[in-house]
Amino acid sequence: MVKAGIIGATGYAGGELVRLLTAHREAEIVWYGSRSYIDKKYADVYRNMFRIVDADCMDDNMEELSEQADVIFTATPQGLCASLVNEDILSKVKIIDLSADFRIKDVSVYEQWYGIRHQSPQFIQEAVYGLCEVNREEVKKARLVANPGCYTTCSILTAYPLAKEGLIDMETLIIDAKSGVSGAGRGAKVPNLYCEVNESIKAYGVASHRHTPEIEEQLGYAAGEKVVLNFTPHLVPMNRGILVTEYAKLKRETDYEEVKAIYDRYYGEETFIRVLEKGVCPETRWVEGSNYVDIGFQIDPRTGRIILMGAIDNLVKGAAGQAVQNMNLMFGLKESEGLEIVPLFP
Amino acid sequence: MVKAGIIGATGYAGGELVRLLTAHREAEIVWYGSRSYIDKKYADVYRNMFRIVDADCMDDNMEELSEQADVIFTATPQGLCASLVNEDILSKVKIIDLSADFRIKDVSVYEQWYGIRHQSPQFIQEAVYGLCEVNREEVKKARLVANPGCYTTCSILTAYPLAKEGLIDMETLIIDAKSGVSGAGRGAKVPNLYCEVNESIKAYGVASHRHTPEIEEQLGYAAGEKVVLNFTPHLVPMNRGILVTEYAKLKRETDYEEVKAIYDRYYGEETFIRVLEKGVCPETRWVEGSNYVDIGFQIDPRTGRIILMGAIDNLVKGAAGQAVQNMNLMFGLKESEGLEIVPLFP
Amino acid sequence: MVKAGIIGATGYAGGELVRLLTAHREAEIVWYGSRSYIDKKYADVYRNMFRIVDADCMDDNMEELSEQADVIFTATPQGLCASLVNEDILSKVKIIDLSADFRIKDVSVYEQWYGIRHQSPQFIQEAVYGLCEVNREEVKKARLVANPGCYTTCSILTAYPLAKEGLIDMETLIIDAKSGVSGAGRGAKVPNLYCEVNESIKAYGVASHRHTPEIEEQLGYAAGEKVVLNFTPHLVPMNRGILVTEYAKLKRETDYEEVKAIYDRYYGEETFIRVLEKGVCPETRWVEGSNYVDIGFQIDPRTGRIILMGAIDNLVKGAAGQAVQNMNLMFGLKESEGLEIVPLFP
Amino acid sequence: MVKAGIIGATGYAGGELVRLLTAHREAEIVWYGSRSYIDKKYADVYRNMFRIVDADCMDDNMEELSEQADVIFTATPQGLCASLVNEDILSKVKIIDLSADFRIKDVSVYEQWYGIRHQSPQFIQEAVYGLCEVNREEVKKARLVANPGCYTTCSILTAYPLAKEGLIDMETLIIDAKSGVSGAGRGAKVPNLYCEVNESIKAYGVASHRHTPEIEEQLGYAAGEKVVLNFTPHLVPMNRGILVTEYAKLKRETDYEEVKAIYDRYYGEETFIRVLEKGVCPETRWVEGSNYVDIGFQIDPRTGRIILMGAIDNLVKGAAGQAVQNMNLMFGLKESEGLEIVPLFP
Repeated sequence: MVKAGIIGATGYAGGELVRLLTAHREAEIVWYGSRSYIDKKYADVYRNMFRIVDADCMDDNMEELSEQADVIFTATPQGLCASLVNEDILSKVKIIDLSADFRIKDVSVYEQWYGIRHQSPQFIQEAVYGLCEVNREEVKKARLVANPGCYTTCSILTAYPLAKEGLIDMETLIIDAKSGVSGAGRGAKVPNLYCEVNESIKAYGVASHRHTPEIEEQLGYAAGEKVVLNFTPHLVPMNRGILVTEYAKLKRETDYEEVKAIYDRYYGEETFIRVLEKGVCPETRWVEGSNYVDIGFQIDPRTGRIILMGAIDNLVKGAAGQAVQNMNLMFGLKESEGLEIVPLFP
Repeated sequence: MVKAGIIGATGYAGGELVRLLTAHREAEIVWYGSRSYIDKKYADVYRNMFRIVDADCMDDNMEELSEQADVIFTATPQGLCASLVNEDILSKVKIIDLSADFRIKDVSVYEQWYGIRHQSPQFIQEAVYGLCEVNREEVKKARLVANPGCYTTCSILTAYPLAKEGLIDMETLIIDAKSGVSGAGRGAKVPNLYCEVNESIKAYGVASHRHTPEIEEQLGYAAGEKVVLNFTPHLVPMNRGILVTEYAKLKRETDYEEVKAIYDRYYGEETFIRVLEKGVCPETRWVEGSNYVDIGFQIDPRTGRIILMGAIDNLVKGAAGQAVQNMNLMFGLKESEGLEIVPLFP
Repeated sequence: MVKAGIIGATGYAGGELVRLLTAHREAEIVWYGSRSYIDKKYADVYRNMFRIVDADCMDDNMEELSEQADVIFTATPQGLCASLVNEDILSKVKIIDLSADFRIKDVSVYEQWYGIRHQSPQFIQEAVYGLCEVNREEVKKARLVANPGCYTTCSILTAYPLAKEGLIDMETLIIDAKSGVSGAGRGAKVPNLYCEVNESIKAYGVASHRHTPEIEEQLGYAAGEKVVLNFTPHLVPMNRGILVTEYAKLKRETDYEEVKAIYDRYYGEETFIRVLEKGVCPETRWVEGSNYVDIGFQIDPRTGRIILMGAIDNLVKGAAGQAVQNMNLMFGLKESEGLEIVPLFP
Repeated sequence: MVKAGIIGATGYAGGELVRLLTAHREAEIVWYGSRSYIDKKYADVYRNMFRIVDADCMDDNMEELSEQADVIFTATPQGLCASLVNEDILSKVKIIDLSADFRIKDVSVYEQWYGIRHQSPQFIQEAVYGLCEVNREEVKKARLVANPGCYTTCSILTAYPLAKEGLIDMETLIIDAKSGVSGAGRGAKVPNLYCEVNESIKAYGVASHRHTPEIEEQLGYAAGEKVVLNFTPHLVPMNRGILVTEYAKLKRETDYEEVKAIYDRYYGEETFIRVLEKGVCPETRWVEGSNYVDIGFQIDPRTGRIILMGAIDNLVKGAAGQAVQNMNLMFGLKESEGLEIVPLFP
């Protein structure tokens, strides 16, 4: 039984970790960390957990937690994990960091896009970028996993095989992404109030969103070249879900069958990636509550472009589900343990 | 392994049965009946089931199905189950009918409220009203279970202990109910279009909704008297969830502790009924995707009334979940098998 | 041209006042008060006003404002208007207070339900309860109008004719109300975040909501007796709209025609009250953006009750629209000036 | 007083025409055409119109209507207007066609993308493409106006100045569009049911949507070259609104000030186009219910692209509002008559 501690258990990603780990047969939660709700019953914060979770919220003492847990999930704002982690802790416990602290290898890129000073750059090289389908073997051996962002998971996995195969011109890649509101977190801010979000759509962070360098770095590894691209997130009035629509010029003539074969080669054996059938576009409703990534594409012979589409549940494959998938890999469990969830519809 | 057939597998309740049975460790689906989609792949109707369900949709041949299945779920409009069932079928297979055909003992009441002639009244007496928490022992022995309606499940369970204990004046009972849109089914009708439902709330079926006599009959058994009440359903712009707010005069002075003790006595051991803590009102979000019934109440000394509130997921405890709970009872399985689902939030 | 000042112009009711007054041909706004956004451009807070409103936000200096304006609207939390108003101000300017400060004649009732000390009880008697259809003549002569609450406007107008005519037993009156989220205001609070409200419904303030005594007082005047009732508000995932469903025992036998005739007698000449046709239930979508109150009813001979239903846009007839209607009356303008708005659908 | 007839008055665009024309001081509706609801009271279809519109629905007899009206709006599916119009009718009445029948000059392109045979190609050349801000003078003289599509209005106006000025490489132009559900019309189809659309986002018509050639043709005129582009529509769970996000390579170095100056030069005097301030992204909520087009942009020096964003209310500027704007121009009325509507928020 893997003993798990969560720092940031009352955010939406933290709450989703609790949901998933509660139903996980090989793990148990030993620490519900939440600085905002210390000593409050967890089930008083998330009443769906009434009679399921009996524990109180704890502070974010990673030292103490490292004594009690086998794995720590940090579902906290940028900077916290980097400020708490040290060699002593890492020698006792594995860490899966859901923040951006260890995702970007070049610390100057991190500091530039996030606008904060990195507190423990010495662990950046060691950290494994926890995109399970890409870095599975490295994850298995890792002490410290940087769990990918929600936009990035969906953006990267959707384009990865074509980038890797050199089929698309990376200079032309444009990612237009759409997210449900839970991605904005549970902070009490006017722009996230119901009436501000409902019945509207907007782009934000245009040409400046922090997930951009993470996508560029990972797709750069795949393509074997430096990638600079446009990534534009949009806020959609729904709780969960990310859809990405990606555009790129094809480097040579191709057809549906060839592209489908590439996707199948990369993802055919993957439990959580579903390459859709011809002509089917992903929709976020079909993955809700699950760890699936649904991927579809359309070649446009008129423009010589291919349009790639991917859909995930931002809180599952985009956060907590992927974190559990990483945990499973790190502890030698069945990779899909606790994640074989049928998507909830409607 | 219980072999289950579903007639009406492509409605919302049918789809939810598929979701629940797919994850059920002691049951498997052998028949996806859907007259509208015969020979179409089930996963092409509900794409959340892509790579999970590989079967095609079948017709609604209950005779043939009775040869292949141990249990048949009929998630179809009123009248269909009654028109198909016969002694031969019932001798071979158990039936859980999610329609209203066998819920009401007085056939004339059924025919009056539903406006159709009952095709097999000879089975009405035998049929067990499948409200598990109330009729558990009868369900275990039943061949034919009438699975309660969504509004009724929530309405009855919320008031049942106080009706049974004679604490409330049944002549004063008023049930004001609110439902998500999935309760209206998947038929292509203008009033259920997105733009017609979104950003609005309305009452409908005022003083005439068909769930009224079902509630009255069952609460009548509890109270030991004929019950006539007002039940007013409302349509709320959300996918899932039913909330009932019930008002009744207290027959004598009482207090929070006494009422709480009554609820705890009736429901304290129930897996799926959660009596909330003092001052907490049920919210449908806290039960979404799960089989829970959340119940709260407030005594108003100013008016001498008690206000009861109950929340369920209409597709789970209000339909498919309760049907699976009934199946578990009928086949001697653990009652909560396949239903221990943590509610999904947000 | 009536010069209007708004204190609290950046709340939702304040924003609606700006929308309505901007389109009003006989009024102009001279002061956009907003303590939270002083010196910020108003159109930077509400970008729908870009190129329509050029002004900056001002503080809430009622003294200074009374020099510049003919009428002051206070769309602020309880207590503010009462703390600012004085005889000198009232001698120079008319005040329409959208808060509860002057709605309740018995100051001890106010202080008990609102939990604050009233700062200027000397003006309570003078204040006119600005429910235009009931107190039209008094409003015309008023210096200080207490603009009714959103729930109360809808609750009272729906029941008023029957209460006044003595047709219903006031002791049995129960009001089950449902509101969109804008009624909760624009404060940054976790419970009002998109993901907390979306896909859920709940009751709140059960047996304790502050609009209760206001409804009781006004319906008490109508009925000529002390009224004590149950009022239960619910939060519905939509931006705008209030629906009330009211239940009462009929004091004697009656029928559709008689009740319809009563409503028509009271409201037949009213511009903003639409008594719906037989069998039609009000829906909030049909009044969105407008000053209408839609009213319907259903007699239930089985229970001897009548079910009354009313729908308004909480920000228009429930706040800003009624405030403008009061202004029109107070300044001798056409009562419907600036309010003849066709409801927006969908 | 301009006498207006509407064919297709019970669709969403038709309903919006009724809303706008009802409030228009220089026009009146003389014919509410709706084949589906002949002889039914219009206000029974759209109950927001209760006590506002007293007329019954009529058939779509354009001959007879041409005798009674000065202008006919056809808010009907593709093909109907082209099948009804003839020289005799056009000699008596002006026509504003909200369908695609006369938008595309090359009849073979129309027939290819729409898959139907054009019934009156002889009027295509005469028809004026009713994008008021671009073709104002032609519209004034037109007998037959092809009212632009909703996606196209937003897509074209957002890019028009930069295409015209040759600042962007048209071969790189990609339009990623997002629409509310009212754009899908009021037909009773399963994919448009509340539960199918709610809590989800999807792309559709990828590389094949019918608005593509219309956008290409119009931007081709602006750019003075043949334009072939990618246009990808998405369905967003909200009633109204279209947001377009457009990506293009800049043909030369430029900066914010220069681009802003270009937009201001083209649109600075336009009543209905609002070029937003630096760094502000359009959001559909800020234009709801109004005829505004909100436009913003962001230059990305990293990629050499410019990201353009535009937002409209699809039923107003994207359909009925623009149609009324065209009517105003055609009849010599003030262009903004009946359209000076403050956007409704929230």
